[in-house]
Amino acid sequence: MATESNRRIVLAARPAGAPKESDLRLEEGPVPQPADGELLVRTIWLSLDPYMRLRMGTEVRYYPPIPIGEVIVGGAVSRVVESRHPAFAPGDIVDDYTGWQDYAIAQGASARKVDPALGPLSTAIGVLGMPGLTAYLGLVKVGRPAPGDTVVISAAAGAVGAVAGQVAKIAGCRVVGIAGGEEKLAYLTGELGFDAAVDRHGNDVPGALAAACPDGVDVYFENVGGPIGDAVYPLLAHGARVVICGGISHYNATEPPRTASHLAPILFTEAEVKGFNIFSYAAHYEHARRRLARWLAEGRLAYREDIVEGLENAPAAFQRLFDGRNFGKLLVRVSAE
Amino acid sequence: MATESNRRIVLAARPAGAPKESDLRLEEGPVPQPADGELLVRTIWLSLDPYMRLRMGTEVRYYPPIPIGEVIVGGAVSRVVESRHPAFAPGDIVDDYTGWQDYAIAQGASARKVDPALGPLSTAIGVLGMPGLTAYLGLVKVGRPAPGDTVVISAAAGAVGAVAGQVAKIAGCRVVGIAGGEEKLAYLTGELGFDAAVDRHGNDVPGALAAACPDGVDVYFENVGGPIGDAVYPLLAHGARVVICGGISHYNATEPPRTASHLAPILFTEAEVKGFNIFSYAAHYEHARRRLARWLAEGRLAYREDIVEGLENAPAAFQRLFDGRNFGKLLVRVSAE
Repeated sequence: MATESNRRIVLAARPAGAPKESDLRLEEGPVPQPADGELLVRTIWLSLDPYMRLRMGTEVRYYPPIPIGEVIVGGAVSRVVESRHPAFAPGDIVDDYTGWQDYAIAQGASARKVDPALGPLSTAIGVLGMPGLTAYLGLVKVGRPAPGDTVVISAAAGAVGAVAGQVAKIAGCRVVGIAGGEEKLAYLTGELGFDAAVDRHGNDVPGALAAACPDGVDVYFENVGGPIGDAVYPLLAHGARVVICGGISHYNATEPPRTASHLAPILFTEAEVKGFNIFSYAAHYEHARRRLARWLAEGRLAYREDIVEGLENAPAAFQRLFDGRNFGKLLVRVSAE
Repeated sequence: MATESNRRIVLAARPAGAPKESDLRLEEGPVPQPADGELLVRTIWLSLDPYMRLRMGTEVRYYPPIPIGEVIVGGAVSRVVESRHPAFAPGDIVDDYTGWQDYAIAQGASARKVDPALGPLSTAIGVLGMPGLTAYLGLVKVGRPAPGDTVVISAAAGAVGAVAGQVAKIAGCRVVGIAGGEEKLAYLTGELGFDAAVDRHGNDVPGALAAACPDGVDVYFENVGGPIGDAVYPLLAHGARVVICGGISHYNATEPPRTASHLAPILFTEAEVKGFNIFSYAAHYEHARRRLARWLAEGRLAYREDIVEGLENAPAAFQRLFDGRNFGKLLVRVSAE
């Protein structure tokens, strides 16, 4: 290992508004050495997710902000290079929050061994990983879909939304996705089997959404916020559940965002609106993952990947999460499988 | 009965903004005759409540709008004058939604017989009636207060808020009330035993509230909305519950209200925000009423009444609910007990 160096992408500056490439910096350093109980791993697939933007700010968002100069947080699928933990051997594939770097130290006590039989390795951080678990558990635990319910999903073509919508279909629901542009809409109603799709760039999003939800909205899976959320709340049906899973339209905001008041729709429908954080549902991960893996094997769960080649291209790719150019689970291929 | 007439206050016009006296009209007509299964009752105490404003509008708010020319809805304590139902006899005291009028027909199948031993008759539509049940069940079923929680209540000196806060004290919580003016604040921290009170007219409501809630807000009992709610959401503690019981600052709005976005505080605290409608909890009324009556008898539940003399003065009094002049449960004495 001594001849190799480790490339790491660190936080150079806290973004003001949308993240810029100059907010991140590629550094090189020595490959780290594992201590007892640790693993040295080499990153194969790095996941790029909206929550990382929150960790670049100054507020505690789930976890404290990333310090300036520290490697950017991120889930990754990696291969064990050296193991000092009895449960792992070189060559094992693991999934852990090892960050934007070629090599990392993983803790044997917390790293998860990936079963390659469940699907392609990249799915361990996609449809069978954090995004898939977020979709399944957010929908099931907070959204509590009943057969016949109308389920609306924003950012529906995204890594979380696409799984949430397909699970809602399996649950016997009418599923309406909101996404941007014809290609994504066609994907939702075609490959993913949604019942309807609404273009967030359309002239009359509230009208289009109302037409797609003639019986109102029983479950709203919120990933976006802002005007998209505002179009949904007036359509809530009695007893609706709103899963506040994310609010990507807010993540780059430099002023406190204002929206339509949602008080009246919540009050008069007795709706329940609840924040959802996947990390609070860790006890359910394996149960949920087995279900998702079965549906994947049965061909009932489609997914799409948006693959970027090379760690050095991660900063530019990250921006695409926020401007709608990303289509499918955004992954960086850091090294060959 | 033939020599008496029945005075009724009917909806003359749908209010635009704050209700005006001219939106309501006093009419006289014959005293109605009960059919089989019905009761003729004479109103003693009429309750004036904010929800009535909603029923004067054009939207379905719990129930359809009151038609123009129809009597205004309202809960009342009345005496049975004539009974054509076997469970009731003349002289019985009943509580039903008989409206703003001297005499009314009540249905024997739905009217509730009031037990005068539980408290003064007026409490049957106050601390032991809909406002008290709303406070108790909203707090307990949706707010789910745990001992040690900080509970914030808006419109805390109102008929609902005052009971909610006292029940939260009984539940072992730190209770912070928001109300307008020194007299109400002194009432909250004095007679009602709240831990702190914040003046909604203060220069820095968010700052005062933050100072009163050093550990954040675990339960917010929302009766107001608008800027008052906006001051509370950023203080939500992890796992907070928000009981959306009312939003009086919205009821006279002529434009769709806008507020600060509550998405981020809900998302990052995993808070639960739920609309509460007392009518969905009817199965729990008697259980809750017995508890409230016991605390009332034990001197653990204080209440205050704001009494208006005469049905003809109800329209003017109703406006006081919306401008902060009302202090205590607003009641109209329609006839002597």
